[in-house]
This record gives sequence, C-alpha cells and structure tokens, in this order.
Amino acid sequence: MISLDALETPALVVDLDRMERNLSRAAAYAATHGLGLRPHVKTHKSPRVGAQQMALGAVGLTCATPYEAHVMSEVCNDILVAYPPVGVARAARLAALPAGVRLTVALDSPRAIDDMARAADTAGRRVGVYVELDLGMHRVGLPVVDDAIAVAKQARAARSLEFAGIAFYPGHVREAPELQDDKLRALSDSLADAIARFKRAGVDVSVVSGGSTPTLWRTHEIEGVTEFRPGTYVYNDRTTAVIGACDWDDCAATVLATVISTAVPGQAVIDAGTKALGREPVRGTDGEGLGQLLEHPDVVVARTSEEHGVLDLSRSSWTPQVGERVRVIPNHVCIVVHLNDVVYGVRGSVVETSWEVVARGRGERVMA
Amino acid sequence: MISLDALETPALVVDLDRMERNLSRAAAYAATHGLGLRPHVKTHKSPRVGAQQMALGAVGLTCATPYEAHVMSEVCNDILVAYPPVGVARAARLAALPAGVRLTVALDSPRAIDDMARAADTAGRRVGVYVELDLGMHRVGLPVVDDAIAVAKQARAARSLEFAGIAFYPGHVREAPELQDDKLRALSDSLADAIARFKRAGVDVSVVSGGSTPTLWRTHEIEGVTEFRPGTYVYNDRTTAVIGACDWDDCAATVLATVISTAVPGQAVIDAGTKALGREPVRGTDGEGLGQLLEHPDVVVARTSEEHGVLDLSRSSWTPQVGERVRVIPNHVCIVVHLNDVVYGVRGSVVETSWEVVARGRGERVMA
Repeated sequence: MISLDALETPALVVDLDRMERNLSRAAAYAATHGLGLRPHVKTHKSPRVGAQQMALGAVGLTCATPYEAHVMSEVCNDILVAYPPVGVARAARLAALPAGVRLTVALDSPRAIDDMARAADTAGRRVGVYVELDLGMHRVGLPVVDDAIAVAKQARAARSLEFAGIAFYPGHVREAPELQDDKLRALSDSLADAIARFKRAGVDVSVVSGGSTPTLWRTHEIEGVTEFRPGTYVYNDRTTAVIGACDWDDCAATVLATVISTAVPGQAVIDAGTKALGREPVRGTDGEGLGQLLEHPDVVVARTSEEHGVLDLSRSSWTPQVGERVRVIPNHVCIVVHLNDVVYGVRGSVVETSWEVVARGRGERVMA
Repeated sequence: MISLDALETPALVVDLDRMERNLSRAAAYAATHGLGLRPHVKTHKSPRVGAQQMALGAVGLTCATPYEAHVMSEVCNDILVAYPPVGVARAARLAALPAGVRLTVALDSPRAIDDMARAADTAGRRVGVYVELDLGMHRVGLPVVDDAIAVAKQARAARSLEFAGIAFYPGHVREAPELQDDKLRALSDSLADAIARFKRAGVDVSVVSGGSTPTLWRTHEIEGVTEFRPGTYVYNDRTTAVIGACDWDDCAATVLATVISTAVPGQAVIDAGTKALGREPVRGTDGEGLGQLLEHPDVVVARTSEEHGVLDLSRSSWTPQVGERVRVIPNHVCIVVHLNDVVYGVRGSVVETSWEVVARGRGERVMA
C-alpha cells in the first residue's frame, strides 16, 4: 500500500468507501421495490466492479460494446447489450460470447434483427431481443408503437431469436429528481399504452427495461418498469451532484492532478487536460467549466487543452503553488474512465488497491 | 490484407498515401528553410510513425508525457519533453529514460528546475532545459523575460542540468495562414527582444523552439525560430482544413462508423460517439458539430453521447440506411488517436496494415 502522494499524475482515483456505499444503496433500493437491477458497465468497464454488482444481487449486467460484453462474461452469465447489433462484425462478435452466457440485445430496426439472427444462426445460439422504444430522448428507439410491434414479431419469427421485452432510455430526464414528476408520469403513460398495444397484437411484454442514474431513486414511480440500468451511480460525478441525484460526498471518482505552472498571472495550470478529464459539459443544467476541485469547490477547470487544465481562481482565495496536488471531480465520469487504463482505489490518503479498466477500448489487435 | 468493409466499427483509419505526403511535405519545408523539425508525437503516439518522421530528417521528437518519451526512446535518441517536469514521480520517470537518449525538458518555474535537477542527479544523467516563454497563448510559459532569464541561470547553476534554449507555443495563432501576419510579426518582435535580453544577461540562446500546425508553412517568417514542433500535420483534421492550414484531401485520419439507427425521424445515428470521436469543437473559427462526413461534407455529427453520434441531415439529400458505413473527419485528431488502441492503414478501400497506438494512456500497471 502506498500513499496517494506517491502516484504519478494525472491518475484516476476512486474512494472505495463511497463506491461501496453507492453500490449497496442502489442494490437495497432495487430489493425494496422488487426491481431488477442491471447496472450499465460503461461507467466502470472493470470486471472487478461488475462482480461486486453481481454479488450485491444484480440480475445481470448491461453493456454497450461487444468488447464490454466479452470482458463482463468472465463475471456474469446474463448480459444485455443495450445497443443495436448492426453490422456483420459486431453481430458475429456478440454471437461469439461464451455459450453459457444468456445474451439479450436491444434494437430498433429490421436490419438489426437480420444481422443478429444471421450471426446467432451461424453460432448456433439463441439471443433474446428487447425492442427499443423512443419515449422522449430522440436518440435511438422506435417512436411508433406499431413499428415496435412489427420488429418484435420479426424477432419471434426468427429461429435463433426470441422476443424478450421492451427497452427505453430516459436520457431526456436530467432535471433535479424533485422536478421530474411530469416526465415520469409521461413515461408511465407511454409504457401503459405500449404494453396494452403489444398485448392486443398478441405479444406479451414480460420485461420492461429502463432507468438511468438521474431517475434512479424514482424508478419505481415509472409504472411498468421491471428492470433498470443505471451506470453512473457507481462513481457519480459533478453532473449527478449538481442536479441533486446524489450528494457531493457520493462522488467517488476524482482525477488526481498536479499544479505544473503558475507562470501566467491569475491562473494555475494542472496536468489534467482533455486527455485525462474529457471535455464534457455539465448536462441537464447550467454549470461552468469541465470539472470542479474536491478541495476547493469554488475552483473549476475553466478550459483544457490536451494535457493542460487551466483553473479559474477568480472566486477563490486559494493561491496554488507549483507542485501542489488537487483532485478534480469530473463533469462526466464515464468518459474519464474510458480515458484511463488503471483505477487506484483509496481509503483516505492510502492507495489500498488498483485495478485495470479492462473493457476500455475495443479489444482490437494489430493484424498479423 | 482485408477490406475496409470487414472492420468492426468504430475504427480509426488512416489513409497511408495522405499521411506519407503530409510527412514528406513538412520534412521538405524544414530542409528548404534550414529549420529543425521536431514533430510532436502527441498526435500519433506510435513509434512506427515517429520512426518515419526520424527517417525523413527530423532532428528529434517532442513528447508531452513521460510515457510518450519512454515509448519514443525506442526509435529516437533526441527527445524533448515540452511539458514542465513537476513532481517527484514525473521527474524520476523522465530521468529513467535510456542513458543513450539526449533529454531536454521545457519548463517555466524554479520548482520544475528543482524537481528535474534532483531526479537527474539521482539518475546520474544530464538534462537540457528550454525555458518556456508565454508569447501570447497564456497557458504556460513566463510572460516576463527577466523571470525567464532567472530560471535559465538556475538551470545553468544546477550540476545535472544545462540551459539549452527557449521555447514557446503559438497556440493563440489559429486563424487562416493568410491572416496571421500581425501575430507572426509580434512573435518575431518578442523573440528578438527576449534573445537580446538573454544575451545582455550573459546567457546565449542557441535554440529557439516554436511552431505549430496552423503556423507550419509560415514558421520561417517567425524570426529567431530554429526548430519547430508541429504535431497535427501528420494526419491533419477538420480544424486544420477549415482554417486553411491544409487542404481537405490532406486529412488522413477518419473514424469509420456504421449507421446503427434511423428510427427517430429526421436523423441517423452512427456508432461513433464521444468515446470514439471526442467532443471537440472546431478551434480558431466557427464550425458546427463534432466532425464531418468524408462522403457527405454537408453532414456533420450534430451531437454525441458515449457510443452514439447523431447526424444532422438537414442540409443533405442523402438518405442513410441502417448498416451503411461512413467515415468521419474529426474536429481534433489528437484526441481521437488518444481514444484508440489500433490504427488501420488503408490505401483506397484496402486495409494494408495496422499498428498500435503504443503511447496512448500513461503506461500504468496495476499494483502488485
């Protein structure tokens, strides 16, 4: 075990007490409300954390990329890929998951059905299908329920596929939890309508998969939802705290950085730039800067270049010294994790452990 | 050799003809003007490309991170780390470069001198020092020449260090090359003044290290500059093309992506989101979106989430189909490379080779 002070910066640091509390709290919430918790691994990309989520009672894990699914198959035998399996290479890689893994995919097009069915046929496996609805985010998902029913029937007709439920992502709900009433009610109404129409069309919907971190603690109020897929909750971030979906002391992940220059008057520069912090805005509400200091909440990273973060000191009485260390609470932790190979797990100022962000990247190999 | 169509997406693709032309052209420019070309490897992070730059006559390579320096030491024995060596861990890692490598660092503070001197002493090596001036970018670098002279003298006084020159980065010059006259003249004037003051203080300046991709072809007009450090020129990007510092057909790097959904009317979604493309604006001038399609220049990536890029089709007559493939010219290629493990080198539609982005990340290892 080493001290936080010994790490080379920038480094991604996770407060283990906070992370464990975040994981336990969501697991308890799911149990209380009889909801299936299927955490999205995009936020941590680490089998170690996925295994903790499973041990706490998750019904399975959610992935976005084929590589995430392969990595998580080491610790989980029930994987949802909440991403359309379009393209021969993508579908084949999903179908190549270990035979003992129950695979479900979420999709919204006949082409995705075709690609997945062909790959599943070739691999000789069955794949479950969630049909994705657009309930207001307007990213992917079918806005017209009859179109979704047609895709569900196409899945039922494919030898290697089975219709397993409907999915949606409430990514348009980013306000403070107490301001979500209208949108949650609209989601409930849309789901009730969709489920009734599916039923009338002869397609029973046994699973409704939704949920996000901003809506996490109100998931049970979205009527019809049977499982939910929060990702960010494991670490939380500045956005989650700003909108009030977690407390500031639930932010488990920070970027440890060093002040490397104060030569230009009125500012200080740290060694966490876009390549360590990303260039993510606060989402869902106003919020200046690209991250906020743990030790000095009135100081934000005003701008970044690749390896530089320029601190705005205008609201602070702090006078940073070259060599001083700080920790940045990032605006969007999922991007930060994707930029890092290793996570350092700390309690207080002691680095207790570290683990690899195994599913970072795409699992590509150089051609022979 | 395989076809571009066989790659799983998203994938980082480099047109080899374009890359080779970009490299040769800059090398020829440097030779014509008697300037030392010291390419910044942050853009490619690959020893394979660094070796090509050296073979074409580069005087050495420029790095930002200790890990980049270690990786490039395999192909280059003259490395500038254009980043303040602040912090015990950072300085020690730099000092641990192979003994046969000539190491120079750029810095702007007494603390950086102290950290580097101590690490160099311990490692028993000599390290060259460029003192960094702020000539208008206002990121790092000393704005007051007398302060820079004091740091240069501190370097001279340190047993293991030697003053090797002055450095600056003209990152504030991002307009079209033909609009740079005033800023280039100001740079020349500032350099003449600084060099004269250094000389009067008894410190000869033999190397002046500057340059960038936007100013690349006018570097010889910045009087006093002896070496230049462009990075982006190897691949170029949408920003470079938009400001006119390269032609569109000099853009060598694209992100190959697949249309994965057209379910929401009026848009199409590709599988290149923030985790493949970054979320970088066009810099130095106006430019909508986060990237532009190679095949459909009137289509931009209007917004991204982690694994989704939403295309703005409003100015295009193209009707994308699910499964169709496109290539995105990124706004800022240095960030895209940092997000990828592998680069696929193509000629036409044939993938001729691939190589690892070896210096991506920080070279961290999980603790024992």
